[in-house]
Amino acid sequence: MPKVTEEHRANRRREIVLAARKCVMDQGFHKTTMADVIRESGLSAGAVYGYFKSKEEIVSAIADDALSTIDQLFEGILNSPDPVTPVDALRAVLEHVLRIAEMPDNDLTRVAIQAWAEALHNDAIMVTASSKYRMLRSNFEAVARRAQADGTVDPEADPKLIAQALFGMVPGFVLQRLLLGDVTPQGYTTGLAALLNAPAVKPV
Amino acid sequence: MPKVTEEHRANRRREIVLAARKCVMDQGFHKTTMADVIRESGLSAGAVYGYFKSKEEIVSAIADDALSTIDQLFEGILNSPDPVTPVDALRAVLEHVLRIAEMPDNDLTRVAIQAWAEALHNDAIMVTASSKYRMLRSNFEAVARRAQADGTVDPEADPKLIAQALFGMVPGFVLQRLLLGDVTPQGYTTGLAALLNAPAVKPV
Repeated sequence: MPKVTEEHRANRRREIVLAARKCVMDQGFHKTTMADVIRESGLSAGAVYGYFKSKEEIVSAIADDALSTIDQLFEGILNSPDPVTPVDALRAVLEHVLRIAEMPDNDLTRVAIQAWAEALHNDAIMVTASSKYRMLRSNFEAVARRAQADGTVDPEADPKLIAQALFGMVPGFVLQRLLLGDVTPQGYTTGLAALLNAPAVKPV
Repeated sequence: MPKVTEEHRANRRREIVLAARKCVMDQGFHKTTMADVIRESGLSAGAVYGYFKSKEEIVSAIADDALSTIDQLFEGILNSPDPVTPVDALRAVLEHVLRIAEMPDNDLTRVAIQAWAEALHNDAIMVTASSKYRMLRSNFEAVARRAQADGTVDPEADPKLIAQALFGMVPGFVLQRLLLGDVTPQGYTTGLAALLNAPAVKPV
């Protein structure tokens, strides 16, 4: 038996994840079966099951891949030498989401929306989605804390609540992009910033 | 044949819509068929088809019912004698969403998430969802214009962009409530307001 290298395994795993993304985008999560993923991947059933036991495991892998690139993005934001502002961080995240979404044939945001719906009826997907989103939101909490340290956000505010509001802007962007088709990261964060610059807001 | 009154028709229609909501919540939109709705309603197939020709028509009715109550809410906000602030308006909308969501056995927000996913694979649902959400968002635009007139928001800002940002906070609230279970209208809008009160924000 040939020794399967780590690199080969990683490539193979990636092929399967991409095939699964394509299936979910074409027909939705509900209708996608392991048989569909196997057919789309062009691999044998044995090969695919050697990596993933169920479509729930594949969804978890899709989420891991997508969120790992976002983790890197937050690392860059948090290590910036300039003062961090939450609105700028949000814009950077949305631009990143857009770059991922605009990859041909592979709009991960469509997969994400399928996963939201599926989570309400599938405990395994719910566990995956809630843990991933909790991690993603904790990155926004780190941004809030950094902004408080930098003096761009009220230091008395609860960074967990700021993270809820900032993180909450992301699904709203994704949904408006797919359903209404008229949002951009710049316009969306400009709309938010217009609230921030409200003349009647009391200074702290 | 007895004459069917308007009131009777409205009640009957309402029964069918409630039965459909229950089906979608129990098993997701994809799996729900007209046969399921008919069974759940306890009516004859002929009776149900007399009101709705397809599950797409029922989804449209569910959305109409939900949004009509929100339209009334916005009317109240816009007719308020006090100055309107967008954050207060958002909080009122989220409190309303929560009241609807917490009705026993009938969490409309779960139906909404199913509809988002389904819209990506079903043109009729996409048309319904996009037109309803465009109307809902235009209410936020009216709030932004009113706030600009009241001096609580920069009059130079684009009210359409403010509406994108405000409307975008709603799906983010709904999703966090269902997946993470730890948001409240007050906490969420406090998080947003903390950004508004950022000490480093330049006065207009």
